[in-house]
Amino acid sequence: MIVLTDGYNDPHTAKTAVCVLRYRPGEVVAVLDRGSAGRTCRQVFDVGGDIPVVGSLDEASGADSLLIGIAPPGGKIPQHWRPIVLEAIGRGLTIISGLHELLRDDPEFATAAKRHGARLVDLRASDEHDVAQRRGLRDDCLRIHTVANDCGCGKMVAAVEVAQRLRRAGVDAAFVATGQTGILIAGGGCAVDRVIADFLSGAAENLVLANQHHDVIVVEGQGSLFHPRYSGVTLGLLHGLMSDGLILCYEMGRSAVFGMEDIPLKPLAEVRDFYERAANIMHPCRVIGAAVYGGEFSDDEVAAECERVGRELGLPACDVIRHGPDKLVEAVLELGRSAQGR
Amino acid sequence: MIVLTDGYNDPHTAKTAVCVLRYRPGEVVAVLDRGSAGRTCRQVFDVGGDIPVVGSLDEASGADSLLIGIAPPGGKIPQHWRPIVLEAIGRGLTIISGLHELLRDDPEFATAAKRHGARLVDLRASDEHDVAQRRGLRDDCLRIHTVANDCGCGKMVAAVEVAQRLRRAGVDAAFVATGQTGILIAGGGCAVDRVIADFLSGAAENLVLANQHHDVIVVEGQGSLFHPRYSGVTLGLLHGLMSDGLILCYEMGRSAVFGMEDIPLKPLAEVRDFYERAANIMHPCRVIGAAVYGGEFSDDEVAAECERVGRELGLPACDVIRHGPDKLVEAVLELGRSAQGR
Repeated sequence: MIVLTDGYNDPHTAKTAVCVLRYRPGEVVAVLDRGSAGRTCRQVFDVGGDIPVVGSLDEASGADSLLIGIAPPGGKIPQHWRPIVLEAIGRGLTIISGLHELLRDDPEFATAAKRHGARLVDLRASDEHDVAQRRGLRDDCLRIHTVANDCGCGKMVAAVEVAQRLRRAGVDAAFVATGQTGILIAGGGCAVDRVIADFLSGAAENLVLANQHHDVIVVEGQGSLFHPRYSGVTLGLLHGLMSDGLILCYEMGRSAVFGMEDIPLKPLAEVRDFYERAANIMHPCRVIGAAVYGGEFSDDEVAAECERVGRELGLPACDVIRHGPDKLVEAVLELGRSAQGR
Repeated sequence: MIVLTDGYNDPHTAKTAVCVLRYRPGEVVAVLDRGSAGRTCRQVFDVGGDIPVVGSLDEASGADSLLIGIAPPGGKIPQHWRPIVLEAIGRGLTIISGLHELLRDDPEFATAAKRHGARLVDLRASDEHDVAQRRGLRDDCLRIHTVANDCGCGKMVAAVEVAQRLRRAGVDAAFVATGQTGILIAGGGCAVDRVIADFLSGAAENLVLANQHHDVIVVEGQGSLFHPRYSGVTLGLLHGLMSDGLILCYEMGRSAVFGMEDIPLKPLAEVRDFYERAANIMHPCRVIGAAVYGGEFSDDEVAAECERVGRELGLPACDVIRHGPDKLVEAVLELGRSAQGR
């Protein structure tokens, strides 16, 4: 695939691109971003090695699909991307999008796709119309869920890394995707933020029912109970999953809500307490560890932060990219042992 | 209009019918419910006076529309109602529905409506695609919101009654509807449980922006933070509204979650505390009173319950139908005075 980030290559907005480069680099022919053309993905995104960043579709002729590589608030396709998408459709490429505005609902894209025989794939589309039933949940599947004090601070990455490492340790574990990027990585899942609000917890429950043949599921979180825009999504997901254990994610050094800079973030201890209280309304649950997204800080600074926050919260803490997720994996295994002991 | 409740006339399931009979009786020609035909609405629903309950469309020939009068979980139209709805369409009646399954999306109904020139009105349909922005909220509009320990325990009725009584006391107050029945009563609003989850808080904020020219708005609550199915809707609404004061509603004598009888309800003090904690993440807010739905209990029993719960929570408490909402109205005015003093 070609990944389109044109003009939006900061790691937060281009999070779909960055995650695909991290977890599915073999499927990426090039990134299309005119302002950074001629450089490599490693230079622009810190991941993706020598995969080239190009300035036109012509320079990535081996690709059979174009992935919309960004996740802007509100989920609308940028206006200046429309000619690029139409050109790709004209070449018969499959267009893959995780945006709220569905490609299939765009008359210009739909008409062009029909004319040129191109496929439009909307990762976010779903047809969830079930309310939660609380039936058939398997007690001996351990349900782990990544949550956060804010958006865009590594909930999906933490879930993927913990699930991968559990599998490498011989545990029958699965990553469960709840967002468009996670769905690309996992090859399935449900973009819960797109579901009709009444069916949120039902969609979460359906994800558990579909994956609980594994011994452990690690479910990607969405939004934050503390985000003014997305807290409803987060609670519906949290309650529908009936989680046993939570991993609390945050970005080091961030002090205000993502995209709403005049709203300060709450202290992490308060965040942890509120998540535990909210989760325990439905099912016994506790926060078992913290995943620190170190961003641009130095290795020493991140190590010091993990040490500090681990002490403050009395929890294992690590940056899953820099340190690996071993501390969190150990916390999951420990929770599983104590659950079996019950 | 004719209100259709056929086979579903218990007050919880037929809540749309009951509320329209209570607040818009002048617009109801008859209720269609074959099992209760020949009786009056007062006899079957305890409201609606002498409005007849009939067994066929023929017996309500003055009506120009048919209202789907129930709100079942999941929001699907009962199978045995389809011939009745098709017959009404065949007579050219407007069909009004607040169900999740939109009439317009039903090929059989849509085709029939086109053929017979009948209108299909889906109260729940919306096109909300805005995330919350936290811009332009007016400080001197007092935002009151009804919340609850469970579904179906009088949040809409409490909001309507408090707003009406405030207006009668000369206050510029408005009831703001967030569900299909409220929309029927208010003539506008947004069915937030139908909104795409990511846009829940944005839809709530839009309701505030559209109504904050009033001095007080009383916004109908949806679901409950303690309901396994709908807690996400409730939190998204609560956070999007940036409420100043909450009225806590519950049904006397209920011990388990509505529709999920094996899940016990939490103590009211815990419910109150969690609502306050959740609301205060976004905006200073407190619970200012309790609205008790007395249901089938005697007047004496309900009075004793209000006395007891008022003492337990240290709040004014009343059944707005039996006692009127004066105690809650006084609590709203008191909150308004203390807000002005700040």
